[in-house]
Amino acid sequence: MEKGILKRGFASDNNAGIHPDILNEISSVNKGHVVGYGSDVYTEKALGIFKEQFGNATETFFVFTGTAANVLSLSGITRSWNSVITASTAHLEEDECAVLTVETTDGKITIEHLDKHIHGFDFEHHSQPKVISISQSTEMGTVYTVSEIRKIADFAHSKGMFLHMDGARISNAAVSLNLLFRAFTADAGVDVLSFGGTKNGMMFGEAICFLKPGLAKDFKYVRKQGMQLASKMRFISAQFIAYFRNDLWKTNAAHSNSMARILADRLQQFKEIRITQDVRSNGVFVIMPAEVAEKMRKHYFFYPWNEKTSEYRLMTSWDTEKADIEDFILLLRKVLNQGQALT
Amino acid sequence: MEKGILKRGFASDNNAGIHPDILNEISSVNKGHVVGYGSDVYTEKALGIFKEQFGNATETFFVFTGTAANVLSLSGITRSWNSVITASTAHLEEDECAVLTVETTDGKITIEHLDKHIHGFDFEHHSQPKVISISQSTEMGTVYTVSEIRKIADFAHSKGMFLHMDGARISNAAVSLNLLFRAFTADAGVDVLSFGGTKNGMMFGEAICFLKPGLAKDFKYVRKQGMQLASKMRFISAQFIAYFRNDLWKTNAAHSNSMARILADRLQQFKEIRITQDVRSNGVFVIMPAEVAEKMRKHYFFYPWNEKTSEYRLMTSWDTEKADIEDFILLLRKVLNQGQALT
Amino acid sequence: MEKGILKRGFASDNNAGIHPDILNEISSVNKGHVVGYGSDVYTEKALGIFKEQFGNATETFFVFTGTAANVLSLSGITRSWNSVITASTAHLEEDECAVLTVETTDGKITIEHLDKHIHGFDFEHHSQPKVISISQSTEMGTVYTVSEIRKIADFAHSKGMFLHMDGARISNAAVSLNLLFRAFTADAGVDVLSFGGTKNGMMFGEAICFLKPGLAKDFKYVRKQGMQLASKMRFISAQFIAYFRNDLWKTNAAHSNSMARILADRLQQFKEIRITQDVRSNGVFVIMPAEVAEKMRKHYFFYPWNEKTSEYRLMTSWDTEKADIEDFILLLRKVLNQGQALT
Amino acid sequence: MEKGILKRGFASDNNAGIHPDILNEISSVNKGHVVGYGSDVYTEKALGIFKEQFGNATETFFVFTGTAANVLSLSGITRSWNSVITASTAHLEEDECAVLTVETTDGKITIEHLDKHIHGFDFEHHSQPKVISISQSTEMGTVYTVSEIRKIADFAHSKGMFLHMDGARISNAAVSLNLLFRAFTADAGVDVLSFGGTKNGMMFGEAICFLKPGLAKDFKYVRKQGMQLASKMRFISAQFIAYFRNDLWKTNAAHSNSMARILADRLQQFKEIRITQDVRSNGVFVIMPAEVAEKMRKHYFFYPWNEKTSEYRLMTSWDTEKADIEDFILLLRKVLNQGQALT
Repeated sequence: MEKGILKRGFASDNNAGIHPDILNEISSVNKGHVVGYGSDVYTEKALGIFKEQFGNATETFFVFTGTAANVLSLSGITRSWNSVITASTAHLEEDECAVLTVETTDGKITIEHLDKHIHGFDFEHHSQPKVISISQSTEMGTVYTVSEIRKIADFAHSKGMFLHMDGARISNAAVSLNLLFRAFTADAGVDVLSFGGTKNGMMFGEAICFLKPGLAKDFKYVRKQGMQLASKMRFISAQFIAYFRNDLWKTNAAHSNSMARILADRLQQFKEIRITQDVRSNGVFVIMPAEVAEKMRKHYFFYPWNEKTSEYRLMTSWDTEKADIEDFILLLRKVLNQGQALT
Repeated sequence: MEKGILKRGFASDNNAGIHPDILNEISSVNKGHVVGYGSDVYTEKALGIFKEQFGNATETFFVFTGTAANVLSLSGITRSWNSVITASTAHLEEDECAVLTVETTDGKITIEHLDKHIHGFDFEHHSQPKVISISQSTEMGTVYTVSEIRKIADFAHSKGMFLHMDGARISNAAVSLNLLFRAFTADAGVDVLSFGGTKNGMMFGEAICFLKPGLAKDFKYVRKQGMQLASKMRFISAQFIAYFRNDLWKTNAAHSNSMARILADRLQQFKEIRITQDVRSNGVFVIMPAEVAEKMRKHYFFYPWNEKTSEYRLMTSWDTEKADIEDFILLLRKVLNQGQALT
Repeated sequence: MEKGILKRGFASDNNAGIHPDILNEISSVNKGHVVGYGSDVYTEKALGIFKEQFGNATETFFVFTGTAANVLSLSGITRSWNSVITASTAHLEEDECAVLTVETTDGKITIEHLDKHIHGFDFEHHSQPKVISISQSTEMGTVYTVSEIRKIADFAHSKGMFLHMDGARISNAAVSLNLLFRAFTADAGVDVLSFGGTKNGMMFGEAICFLKPGLAKDFKYVRKQGMQLASKMRFISAQFIAYFRNDLWKTNAAHSNSMARILADRLQQFKEIRITQDVRSNGVFVIMPAEVAEKMRKHYFFYPWNEKTSEYRLMTSWDTEKADIEDFILLLRKVLNQGQALT
Repeated sequence: MEKGILKRGFASDNNAGIHPDILNEISSVNKGHVVGYGSDVYTEKALGIFKEQFGNATETFFVFTGTAANVLSLSGITRSWNSVITASTAHLEEDECAVLTVETTDGKITIEHLDKHIHGFDFEHHSQPKVISISQSTEMGTVYTVSEIRKIADFAHSKGMFLHMDGARISNAAVSLNLLFRAFTADAGVDVLSFGGTKNGMMFGEAICFLKPGLAKDFKYVRKQGMQLASKMRFISAQFIAYFRNDLWKTNAAHSNSMARILADRLQQFKEIRITQDVRSNGVFVIMPAEVAEKMRKHYFFYPWNEKTSEYRLMTSWDTEKADIEDFILLLRKVLNQGQALT
């Protein structure tokens, strides 16, 4: 293997590269001159696709990174005295307003969790709760159902708050739920969405979708000040065009979800290993002996999730192959046997 | 011509696409998994190239846009109570600190210009001048000589200030001066540089180079908070690798500079048109009758620079062809003759 | 004279102390307990006075300093992508949004000055002009007439912008115009006002008055975040109560205005001294030989306004006495004669 | 009782007014002119007192409010990517950097609490822990011992972090510990201190004391930008002069502490009431039946601390009188008896 190129493993879905169809599309729009900053036909087309997917009222803005999608979409609907409530697993980047976290066991917020932060309205000594932000799928690989989202949305709206969805892995959730995107976003009461592509085969490029009319009013200034306005925008737009053509997003996400399912199934054979979360998308969370993990990580780069409980995160991606799983399982068996031998 | 694809004109060097060598390099690094956020071999290689070009002490950070390169590099060396002094043509984006402008006729600052802003040191009622920022080449297509830069650098350092260079078009300047990059940056006293690639054939990707040791200390946090840390960094790094291989930057910039030279020469035949700036890089600034410009702009998209004086900006790019110039001149002659006929 | 206590001179109207009536009022409300942060009867009373003075729709917030009054009132009606246009003499403190300045000869903006900054609306690459800010009386001692203010207000409103007035010395202007406050503020189209008391006999305490309904909606959060919410608010409110009782503001301002008038008249006897601005309130601007100023400033602390033209600012205050002027003139005559003797 | 003047109760120590000695001092410095913004003899004197109290290296800056003292002192020693760790009871206002909270039962942090936030150093995806902030006395009326503070300071310094103390009620703590201020601040390893006066008899005015040399380097700009630079500074300085003269701070704090002690003792007679915190300074925390509290609060304004557990906060102040306590106890007995009668 070439120096510095990793064995295809389970560290992160952003360690994978660009899907060939997406790279081809970049190449295909690379001709002639177009006006910069989004006033081009490819961007027009890509924005139109988002209207098809999420409804005609949807206003979409492309940015470079998932962090930017979250930070700026939240900036667009809050002021500095507002607070955003989110699961502590979300590690939401703050810009100006306060981030209040709730502890969950599976990365999913329920309205019961929210109680402790829902107070102090209209009181200037207290930050004003304005947004509930959920991740779909969550950082722990779990997935909200439509009715779970609807409940949070109704709760938020009853308090004059917005519901934001961090959709860095929204395609994996859509596949998991077997639903159209809009069924569990716009139609379920989500007001603003960070729609991610990078973790599912794009080079870079994320979309901020304002699903509730009126929210996008000044957003172009927010994006510009946030340094996220691409001069050669067509090369982000082209990626989204390819991403939706023939449901490439679904093919990629279905693949990584099924690889996670297989990985989880194969891991269940080992009594030393415990799967800690419902495997609903492309992440598998496992508790394994620390010394085993240490040995495995010499060959496969992957991240500890909780060092105290010896919990680790394994992510599959659009390019994970079955052989990658078998190799991993093979090595794991070897390491576990060694461990027993040593005892 | 396909709908929405512009005739290759002179509106902006960012209306051009990606040079094929750069796109090929992106494709070439698109294999296997690598660690995200810049801990990959391609980024290591690309950062090494910057050390070769600017000296071993150089610390470089890649970001997405030229705006980000300027805003963040300045954020990295200032606090909110500082001010940055720049030419009014620079339209420097502000983050937190004050931007003080000086009026110039050719986009080039001299130390005589700076006088009016260099005061109030150590006085809390006054913003503290901390950076002088120059553009090389300038927004008006002019180019600073090494000795001009050195003078400003010495002045800045004598006041405890830094010299920042906005190098969105630094390659055009290097070709114009026929010098190595470092000769008119690090060696001439520049402390921090925004090194641009997008306007000269890259897709996107700019570099912030800290040339003076110590200045980059906390910059990784600035970039992260600035939402400019690419997860799939290898695809920016690859572009820079290709940009420096076989001096592609020089080929591209030399081409666009020479196209500007030819465009300017061809424009001089028309007595109705006056070239207002020294044509040193890839911009040609002309005063032409407003009604002529209006007619031309129906066929060629280009920007007015000063509506009051009827001054316009024409930019050439790495993909401008001689035929584009001849077509433009042909149409211009027709429009001018019509004008005379009408009189 | 006690060490460190200055001869009562003409350095600044904030070098004066507290008017006895105001200090008495502080003492008079210093009894028993009241709820903090403005929920007390004294604050209720003081806010009511502002409604009487400026109209029933007026919403008023007390803050500690004039800088805070300007910064926060502007923050309350702008977003970070907006710009505020003001005279360059105003030295308006910026918070987030851009401050664009116009050069004036007398500190007074006219709509002709504004032209160069009124463009780029709805264009995200350009900061969005949102507020015109004028000072009344100006930093140069001049005063806008009602019709001048009305013209600027109409212009601002026609562009969808607000008119802000920095009234650090509004009482001096009201006396100069011989008008009620509301005649040249609310009734002349001013939307937001910084109403100053400190420079006219208060200890500290300024008021932000939102004159146009709706603008104060979220302002209580802005003030709280701006660290300008006084816990023992009653002691600011009491000062305003005393300030308006028996028109103390008018007595004080009329006195300092008339002292400025007398100072100017007395200065006109010296051919070496030229008064540069219309003396309309409590400032006298003079050009005098630098060496004369230098000698004077050994005895009287006062500020240079423009070192190049040898222009100086002399301010009178509510406690200036005629004898202070005579002493100053006496010394000035001596210094000027010495100068001639030396020549 | 005059309308709007509250019965002297136990709502908050900032509901009390100004101690007469302090108001007299304001009056006493109200003569003649002095230079504004702190360049006056009274400020010089007051700053000197802080050097005497905390050591010669101490650099002190006066501001208006306790919020400002905390926000700005933390701003002065952090950057936007830093985090401050504090007890969740502290409700520390955030400016730019993240605030991480730890749950405590008595408002006092121990190094065991800190563990969960002390990680991620040098990792740009994580906010960088930079300050531990403790309140002395705490919001729950408890007091850190010197050795408790020293342990936290040593821990902080071993991590390259600073220790900040919110001393809004530092005088109450000094009395409680029977120590000089410096014994449990500078000498115990505190780097930066917010020294409060308002809650112990001043009108307004707090001090930020940088106890570790070098930390105050750019702070004058932070204060100015924070809109906390008083033009008539002498009237804050005078208050501090009076505050330290004849140890007025000690007289006042000793009084309010002893009143809290008496109040707590008297409350212990009621079996329906439970004191929840160690009464070390001027706060008494009690659990009492909600319906009793409700009846009491019709006569005495005081705050619920935790509505779920029916816990309430009672604060004494420099002007609390024994009779106030007796009246309160009398009413409480009546209300409790009624309650029994009703059952």
